[in-house]
Amino acid sequence: MPSFKITLAYDGTDYVGWQRQANGVSIQSLVEDALRVLDGRDVRVTGAGRTDAGVHALGQVAAFTIERTLSCDAVLRALNAHLPDAIRVLVADEAASTFHPRFGARTKTYRYRIWNGDVISPFERRYAWHIAGTLDFDAMRTAARLVEGRQDFAAFQASGGSATTSEREVFSSRFDCESPSPNPQSPLLVYDISGSGFLRHMVRNIVGSLVEVGRGRRPAGWIGDLLALRDRTAAGPTAPAMGLFLVGVEYGGALAALS
Amino acid sequence: MPSFKITLAYDGTDYVGWQRQANGVSIQSLVEDALRVLDGRDVRVTGAGRTDAGVHALGQVAAFTIERTLSCDAVLRALNAHLPDAIRVLVADEAASTFHPRFGARTKTYRYRIWNGDVISPFERRYAWHIAGTLDFDAMRTAARLVEGRQDFAAFQASGGSATTSEREVFSSRFDCESPSPNPQSPLLVYDISGSGFLRHMVRNIVGSLVEVGRGRRPAGWIGDLLALRDRTAAGPTAPAMGLFLVGVEYGGALAALS
Repeated sequence: MPSFKITLAYDGTDYVGWQRQANGVSIQSLVEDALRVLDGRDVRVTGAGRTDAGVHALGQVAAFTIERTLSCDAVLRALNAHLPDAIRVLVADEAASTFHPRFGARTKTYRYRIWNGDVISPFERRYAWHIAGTLDFDAMRTAARLVEGRQDFAAFQASGGSATTSEREVFSSRFDCESPSPNPQSPLLVYDISGSGFLRHMVRNIVGSLVEVGRGRRPAGWIGDLLALRDRTAAGPTAPAMGLFLVGVEYGGALAALS
Repeated sequence: MPSFKITLAYDGTDYVGWQRQANGVSIQSLVEDALRVLDGRDVRVTGAGRTDAGVHALGQVAAFTIERTLSCDAVLRALNAHLPDAIRVLVADEAASTFHPRFGARTKTYRYRIWNGDVISPFERRYAWHIAGTLDFDAMRTAARLVEGRQDFAAFQASGGSATTSEREVFSSRFDCESPSPNPQSPLLVYDISGSGFLRHMVRNIVGSLVEVGRGRRPAGWIGDLLALRDRTAAGPTAPAMGLFLVGVEYGGALAALS
């Protein structure tokens, strides 16, 4: 019974998220449907991160065990033949039967994209949060750094999360300017955050608060106050799902991302 | 009766093309619908390029005359409020009543995007032609240069075109490598072609023939042979619409593109 680790990219626009749910089509259910065709039986797939409805992935990691003896290349081709083109398996590797994508993860990286211009490019409408007003980018940059380190992120945790503790370590929290190809003067702001793990809606809640700072409604230091307060109701609104990407998951050094 | 020149970007995936047609929704018809709401009467819109079904635009140019006296900013906002988010007016300028987007154009620039990798990114599935096999990029680069200059492009003209002559001037025909943001080792090939004007399907037919060269089925010099032969049936297949973008239209110096 060979086990596999797969790396997936998906456009989350039309799905209810990674996890199987009663109210719509999930990425997990589509991968499990494709594996049922491949293996002739029900196969359970475990994912590294439970991306929410509308959230995208450049490098989600999942694992499963099948009965048939197949090469990695055969698994990759068979899955892509059965999956819709909004979901692609980028890499398939053999894995130990004990490999668990979530519990084994050392680092997860998320990206959040903001289009800060009057008119959003039609090619970004599903992949960025459109904010038309002026943002104080320097203040956002400064505020972003304040979530780095081992801290209690209760202020940025959605209700309904299953975590037993709200302490997490954020290794890096940075804004960068990205110039996507057709447009050299792009109004695209790109925020990358890496950490040991993330609470439910944590990245979107952090981004929502950073945008409050960018809009001049709060000073950069407010992010530090929120962390100290540990009160979700004090923080900014949750940023919309469409701007969020699970970039990759690291296991002992190698980043499993789009390559 | 003020006249306006507008610059538009659109995701052409779900449309029958720029031009109004009986068999589906066109960009032109949607702009005219929005102007009818704005001006309270039928308004005729003229475009610079008749992009085909599924072809995209980063900088299509269109013109119209309305009865109401409105600022450029009001026109831009009202149109964007009524258009679907796959179509955005990027710029609205006042224009002379004699301005004609097609007859006045000095230079048009098109871009064609090819994803040359085993698995196409889900974020490129609507915006690039996926070619999985190896392409000889050096040969394609050399072949691309052969269409530059004032030449008879009959070999690359689709039947049904309305042009009276198949002579055109191509100012520049070049491949470049593009690295889109999330992915530094991108298998994306980007081809840009600028010219005085283009025949029906001309860019897609040139790209189809360049790919024949890239696949090693023909030498680079074959492109020169095709131009001399002036026989459409001798050339390569028409490249798919999804990879093509109208980048911009130039009128006396200023490129009307995404900014």
